[in-house]
Amino acid sequence: MDVRRIRPEKYLRYLYLPNLFGTKRTKEILSVNPTVIPQREEAREVVIYTYDYDQGHLEEKSLANTEESFSYKNSGRNTWVNIDGLRKADVEAICQHYEIHPLLLEDILSINQRPKMDEVEGVLYCLLNMLYFNPQKNTVESEQISIVLGKDFVISFQEDASRDVFNPLRNRLKNAKSQIRQRTADYLLYSMLDLIVDNYFIVMEKLGEQIETLEEEVVRKSNKRSLAHINQLRKELIVLKRNVAPVRDLVSNIIRSESELLEDRTTKYFKDVYDHVVQAHDLTENYRDVMMNMQDLYVSNVNLRLNEVMKVMTIVTCLLAPATVVGGIFGMNFDIIPYAHHQWGFYFAVGIMLLVPLAMLYWFKRRGWF
Amino acid sequence: MDVRRIRPEKYLRYLYLPNLFGTKRTKEILSVNPTVIPQREEAREVVIYTYDYDQGHLEEKSLANTEESFSYKNSGRNTWVNIDGLRKADVEAICQHYEIHPLLLEDILSINQRPKMDEVEGVLYCLLNMLYFNPQKNTVESEQISIVLGKDFVISFQEDASRDVFNPLRNRLKNAKSQIRQRTADYLLYSMLDLIVDNYFIVMEKLGEQIETLEEEVVRKSNKRSLAHINQLRKELIVLKRNVAPVRDLVSNIIRSESELLEDRTTKYFKDVYDHVVQAHDLTENYRDVMMNMQDLYVSNVNLRLNEVMKVMTIVTCLLAPATVVGGIFGMNFDIIPYAHHQWGFYFAVGIMLLVPLAMLYWFKRRGWF
Amino acid sequence: MDVRRIRPEKYLRYLYLPNLFGTKRTKEILSVNPTVIPQREEAREVVIYTYDYDQGHLEEKSLANTEESFSYKNSGRNTWVNIDGLRKADVEAICQHYEIHPLLLEDILSINQRPKMDEVEGVLYCLLNMLYFNPQKNTVESEQISIVLGKDFVISFQEDASRDVFNPLRNRLKNAKSQIRQRTADYLLYSMLDLIVDNYFIVMEKLGEQIETLEEEVVRKSNKRSLAHINQLRKELIVLKRNVAPVRDLVSNIIRSESELLEDRTTKYFKDVYDHVVQAHDLTENYRDVMMNMQDLYVSNVNLRLNEVMKVMTIVTCLLAPATVVGGIFGMNFDIIPYAHHQWGFYFAVGIMLLVPLAMLYWFKRRGWF
Amino acid sequence: MDVRRIRPEKYLRYLYLPNLFGTKRTKEILSVNPTVIPQREEAREVVIYTYDYDQGHLEEKSLANTEESFSYKNSGRNTWVNIDGLRKADVEAICQHYEIHPLLLEDILSINQRPKMDEVEGVLYCLLNMLYFNPQKNTVESEQISIVLGKDFVISFQEDASRDVFNPLRNRLKNAKSQIRQRTADYLLYSMLDLIVDNYFIVMEKLGEQIETLEEEVVRKSNKRSLAHINQLRKELIVLKRNVAPVRDLVSNIIRSESELLEDRTTKYFKDVYDHVVQAHDLTENYRDVMMNMQDLYVSNVNLRLNEVMKVMTIVTCLLAPATVVGGIFGMNFDIIPYAHHQWGFYFAVGIMLLVPLAMLYWFKRRGWF
Amino acid sequence: MDVRRIRPEKYLRYLYLPNLFGTKRTKEILSVNPTVIPQREEAREVVIYTYDYDQGHLEEKSLANTEESFSYKNSGRNTWVNIDGLRKADVEAICQHYEIHPLLLEDILSINQRPKMDEVEGVLYCLLNMLYFNPQKNTVESEQISIVLGKDFVISFQEDASRDVFNPLRNRLKNAKSQIRQRTADYLLYSMLDLIVDNYFIVMEKLGEQIETLEEEVVRKSNKRSLAHINQLRKELIVLKRNVAPVRDLVSNIIRSESELLEDRTTKYFKDVYDHVVQAHDLTENYRDVMMNMQDLYVSNVNLRLNEVMKVMTIVTCLLAPATVVGGIFGMNFDIIPYAHHQWGFYFAVGIMLLVPLAMLYWFKRRGWF
Repeated sequence: MDVRRIRPEKYLRYLYLPNLFGTKRTKEILSVNPTVIPQREEAREVVIYTYDYDQGHLEEKSLANTEESFSYKNSGRNTWVNIDGLRKADVEAICQHYEIHPLLLEDILSINQRPKMDEVEGVLYCLLNMLYFNPQKNTVESEQISIVLGKDFVISFQEDASRDVFNPLRNRLKNAKSQIRQRTADYLLYSMLDLIVDNYFIVMEKLGEQIETLEEEVVRKSNKRSLAHINQLRKELIVLKRNVAPVRDLVSNIIRSESELLEDRTTKYFKDVYDHVVQAHDLTENYRDVMMNMQDLYVSNVNLRLNEVMKVMTIVTCLLAPATVVGGIFGMNFDIIPYAHHQWGFYFAVGIMLLVPLAMLYWFKRRGWF
Repeated sequence: MDVRRIRPEKYLRYLYLPNLFGTKRTKEILSVNPTVIPQREEAREVVIYTYDYDQGHLEEKSLANTEESFSYKNSGRNTWVNIDGLRKADVEAICQHYEIHPLLLEDILSINQRPKMDEVEGVLYCLLNMLYFNPQKNTVESEQISIVLGKDFVISFQEDASRDVFNPLRNRLKNAKSQIRQRTADYLLYSMLDLIVDNYFIVMEKLGEQIETLEEEVVRKSNKRSLAHINQLRKELIVLKRNVAPVRDLVSNIIRSESELLEDRTTKYFKDVYDHVVQAHDLTENYRDVMMNMQDLYVSNVNLRLNEVMKVMTIVTCLLAPATVVGGIFGMNFDIIPYAHHQWGFYFAVGIMLLVPLAMLYWFKRRGWF
Repeated sequence: MDVRRIRPEKYLRYLYLPNLFGTKRTKEILSVNPTVIPQREEAREVVIYTYDYDQGHLEEKSLANTEESFSYKNSGRNTWVNIDGLRKADVEAICQHYEIHPLLLEDILSINQRPKMDEVEGVLYCLLNMLYFNPQKNTVESEQISIVLGKDFVISFQEDASRDVFNPLRNRLKNAKSQIRQRTADYLLYSMLDLIVDNYFIVMEKLGEQIETLEEEVVRKSNKRSLAHINQLRKELIVLKRNVAPVRDLVSNIIRSESELLEDRTTKYFKDVYDHVVQAHDLTENYRDVMMNMQDLYVSNVNLRLNEVMKVMTIVTCLLAPATVVGGIFGMNFDIIPYAHHQWGFYFAVGIMLLVPLAMLYWFKRRGWF
Repeated sequence: MDVRRIRPEKYLRYLYLPNLFGTKRTKEILSVNPTVIPQREEAREVVIYTYDYDQGHLEEKSLANTEESFSYKNSGRNTWVNIDGLRKADVEAICQHYEIHPLLLEDILSINQRPKMDEVEGVLYCLLNMLYFNPQKNTVESEQISIVLGKDFVISFQEDASRDVFNPLRNRLKNAKSQIRQRTADYLLYSMLDLIVDNYFIVMEKLGEQIETLEEEVVRKSNKRSLAHINQLRKELIVLKRNVAPVRDLVSNIIRSESELLEDRTTKYFKDVYDHVVQAHDLTENYRDVMMNMQDLYVSNVNLRLNEVMKVMTIVTCLLAPATVVGGIFGMNFDIIPYAHHQWGFYFAVGIMLLVPLAMLYWFKRRGWF
Repeated sequence: MDVRRIRPEKYLRYLYLPNLFGTKRTKEILSVNPTVIPQREEAREVVIYTYDYDQGHLEEKSLANTEESFSYKNSGRNTWVNIDGLRKADVEAICQHYEIHPLLLEDILSINQRPKMDEVEGVLYCLLNMLYFNPQKNTVESEQISIVLGKDFVISFQEDASRDVFNPLRNRLKNAKSQIRQRTADYLLYSMLDLIVDNYFIVMEKLGEQIETLEEEVVRKSNKRSLAHINQLRKELIVLKRNVAPVRDLVSNIIRSESELLEDRTTKYFKDVYDHVVQAHDLTENYRDVMMNMQDLYVSNVNLRLNEVMKVMTIVTCLLAPATVVGGIFGMNFDIIPYAHHQWGFYFAVGIMLLVPLAMLYWFKRRGWF
């Protein structure tokens, strides 16, 4: 991911109206097709590392290719193979070696999948999305993560080699006294899910900041730009909800699973993750509610402004009224016009022109318009 | 289906307003009556083919009439009879030969049915709709598909002989190493459902493109045409949802079924289909949300424009005000008008006419209206 | 029911505004009180007929009074007694003879009941409403139907003697080869429910036509009349939903019932009815959605029209502006007015009057207002 | 309750705007606190009566104090003690004598409770609200009713001594042949619940009349008063729903209860009550829908009227336009004005003034504005 | 918490518009992250007290540090340790001594948690929020409460030492005859939950008063300030709902729990709490409904006012019309103007100017606009 801050696209996108409203993003969000496998591009870069550990022992290794990981199978210790960047050949090789069902292989290579959990032939498979907030585009981006839990091993697949979700786990693994080293492989799975779910809150916090800024914007001036931002944020909330909601089922399926891979004493950890996912899901509902408030606020604000504009017009029109009427009356070219030759006629007429609007304004004031 | 692109109807329908809003389509969508059997027209063309296969053997045959398929019953191999185009006599003949319950016969011949799954007297019956996106009319069209899974046979019925949903299966059947050849008939059923469900996503992608185009249109100019398009798309989403939602129950009923026709090892494939249907259903909800956003966007946009128009009117009215007032005052035909004979009187009056609107504009600016 | 087409009420009701909006109908819909038994008027006309049948035998008889039906009890054949038009004495007599629980007697005589199914002391009782579309008033009318299924007998009660819901069944009964003759009494119950549910779709089709007409009306001119029609149709949809939704539970209760009166092999027929009721209920939801679209369409249309009106006003105001300003300037009665004596002064002033509005129109055009 | 019809408050409340909108009622509705026991005022008047009955015997007695009822305990017959008006000491005495759990005592004395059913130490306790429609204030008022069903006795507590919910039961008890005399105490409980639930429909009927009147009002003139009435009725519907919805659970809990106090043959009576409560609840949803329609109708009506007003303004403005332009042109004080000295100049100018607005009106007509 | 009433912030916040709309509060509400443990500041002040009690004995003690509480473990009596103010070291010490699972330790120290109940290794853990209404900021504030129920002990943790939720319990404990002294520790847990839930109603009552005030405000003048207040209250209702809804599950989990820590006879007390939580949750829904009414009321009111303003404009414009037309006609500088030299010409023209608007007003009146 490009992290340089000054990018021309960033500013140019505001010049073209549909860009401001992110209509391309709409298509991106809606055109989800989990079934078209060939669409995934082969990763240009692949990073592979393994951790082979138990309570007393830790072997950390960065691998050049997937084949090197094969030797760790049945090492007698817990093995974690992490593959960052997906290439079809690599995934096939490792799935064959670890005897993973072809359906799971398909899922790992698929894109746009809905988060889910599967138990197939002795392994437990989790597919979910890591979420990132892209501050350049103000979008919620996702990276598909696949985790395979088997007897004594965990294999994790990440789409994007340039960022590693599981970095914080490395340090914990190095610490021989950490829970993760005392436990079986299912605890590693828990740690991974926990990490991913915790990240949801960080993305939501970023969205929360966006919403705060947006609310200030809407309150100040309800114009096309703030409308565009409301529209844009509502779309990102759809992305958020879509990724968070199914994870509830995923984790609750793990808790209810009777797989031998899951130790009883790990259940309470998964329950903890579950509590967090439920809270994350509740929060997305809160975000939705706040955005509905915002939409109402926007509409109310625009209406209020229209009201104000109309009031000014009414005042001005009232100011015009006597000038038009009186001016119209005494401007006519009749020979005989009363007071036309009177000394104070002009001032009398101008007096009416001034007094009538003042009276009208007073009357409006009393009706509570200003 | 007529595939020629230049059709006069395509353009003429925009001339007549209710056509633009697709009111006929509304009736089409709402007038669903699953019970009136005689309404189905007899197919003008019927295409029948059978595949009789097992791991080592494949017999593919295009038949002239349904009777030819009778010999495959109890062939000892898996038999797939596909009937493209429905004629009452054909369906009755084949149902009688394969001992299919009269209620199912009725369902096969019915129209406008809600997708459902039934287990009746040893066969498993699925009725669901293949969806197509009609680019000429921008509508979602459906073709009713009936699939009967029996012991060693699958009979599929399609409404329309001019297009064949199951084309991709033919190639897979020819490949002796494909899963489909290794397995029992329920795997063929899975493959069919998978194909149909996958197609939902393609239809949705097309609708997603429509929505993107529509959003651009709404953002640019919120006029009667974009209103018509919003209205139209919301109706198609009803069609989409109606066809997708019940398929969830259909597949989940298959998974929970304890029929002997379904092998245990096929369950995980149906679970895969189930995941996809759930995702498709979630997506239809997303589409709905996006269309609600669009409706809000449209209304907000129209209001914004009204606001802008009103602002211009207010400015213009304010410009008129001093001209009317001052012109009214000095245009009156009194004998004695102050400054009337003064050298700079005219310029003094015109000066007021110019300064007052400028002051008002400055005041509006400060109140944040422009 | 009066079937003559030309009725003065039909046209007069449009003269009085609340009539147009059907406020009386609102009260009718809302004032449902299932508990006031004495409100039901005694039927002026009662039609009774019985069918005593089995596979080989059919005795059809039109009765003068309920007592005549008593002899068919325990005839050894299936007996269907149909009573068209309710009189308290008749119902009590027959209930006593057939040993039907007083609570059911009360239900049969009640009005405004919610559809329900009960099993009380060996009989199975269904109460539901036949729906009709009244084309004169554009309302959905209901007729309460009670069906009692006992051992070897079915007794059906209809409110209105002038129309007979179960007419189609008579012909089927006369056909000795029809399913209905081969089966026990529960199949007759199924046939009745099927008939009633099928009728819901016919009513909905009628409503669908109303909605199509309404949509055309709303698209053409969004005025008070179309508003009244939207309001009216939304109320009829409430009636529709109220009558259809509980029938789902009714049929599903029959399916789940373990009553000895229901043969196992009839269950799949009830399942078929259930599928249809579910579809009918889904459709009412679709109708609701379409009516929400319509309401949005109406509001958007009114707003669009307001916008258009305002644009015209703005254009006209802009046209007025220079005439007012320039006319105001040169209409003042000062002695010294520049160019007043100039040969082309008048044409110069008129030129400004024409050029300024043209420039403004050009500017509006560019801002995309027209 | 004061039943005199002419009360000054009734009319004065319309003078003060927030009164018209019933903001105090809002607080009343929202400030529900079930936990503050001391808030209940001691009843000024208490009416106590007992019925000691079985099939052959009936003893009716009006008591001076609660102690007198103690003797009926274990009378061998069914005893009904009704206490109209709550005083802490009375309730405590009777609860102690009949060995009712302190928690129930608390519930009986509490206010603002949600309807519920409890089984505590051998007695069955129902708390629900009798609803009344107050025609003076157009509000739904509730009176908390507690019913304790024990072995052979029913004790009922009513808040307000001035009205007695259970009056109709007295006559039925006096009739030795009535069901109520043939049965055990649970049938009395059923009769009470039935009476209360039936009353809900009467309150709803009253609200239905209100809604009809309101709809007529909204259709005629959508002003601040009709807005206030909509707002007011929506609040009363909240009260209605709040009191009706939990009674569903209450009755369904009784049905599912396995208490020995409930005879099997009474279950079908409770099912009957349940059907009515469900219908009442469905109806409150219908009321809600109708009120949403009303709100939409109101908004649409106001918009329509705005549209009409704007159209008149536009017509008038268009009428002004040529007068202003032509008058402005020919009113300028230039020496040389074309046609100024022409014989028909004046008429020519006035002709333009008349023709232009006619042309504009024709054009508007064609665009379908009038 | 600062309790001094006169604070400059209180008034200054109204000067800055986004402050009025509470956009910072939006961020506060949305940025919930239950996972960032280090964010909690160490309490500056910690108040610890213990109650060691049984039926006959009570030892109350205020402790200087947590270590002093250790001796009460296994005292043979019920022990309640209350820790007001959280410091990491203290909590860790006490958790270690009472053998509380590290996951619970984490939960106790966490912030922003969703209310939940857990059973981990022999203890029952409840986490929920005490709610307070802050009258300065008009916000709902929460204080996280953790309660650990073990064999013979209850440990409660409160965030804020400056206020003690459980004060009312102290007096009850001192009363040797109170239920709380007769019972096991689970009754103490019940008393705590009851106290917290009862407090929700007090907070809601405060909000109810806010809503009443707001409704009056909206009814009087629908301006930016009332819009801000609606927006603000809707946000606080989100906070309320978020804290109340999960407590339902919490209490219902306790009721369904089969933990040995919970006596059977205490269940009915928890059921009582459950009833209250359900009622509290229903009430939050009522609040939501009322706020939706308010939003509708606000929008309708603004529209009504716009309508009124537009009517005045229309009247004024109509008044102008004849003056402009007639004045324009007779103000033209043609030589020959009819009636120009007539004696009553001027009065005739002025008469038209007056009669035409009167006629128009009469016509408007008849169309029901005023």
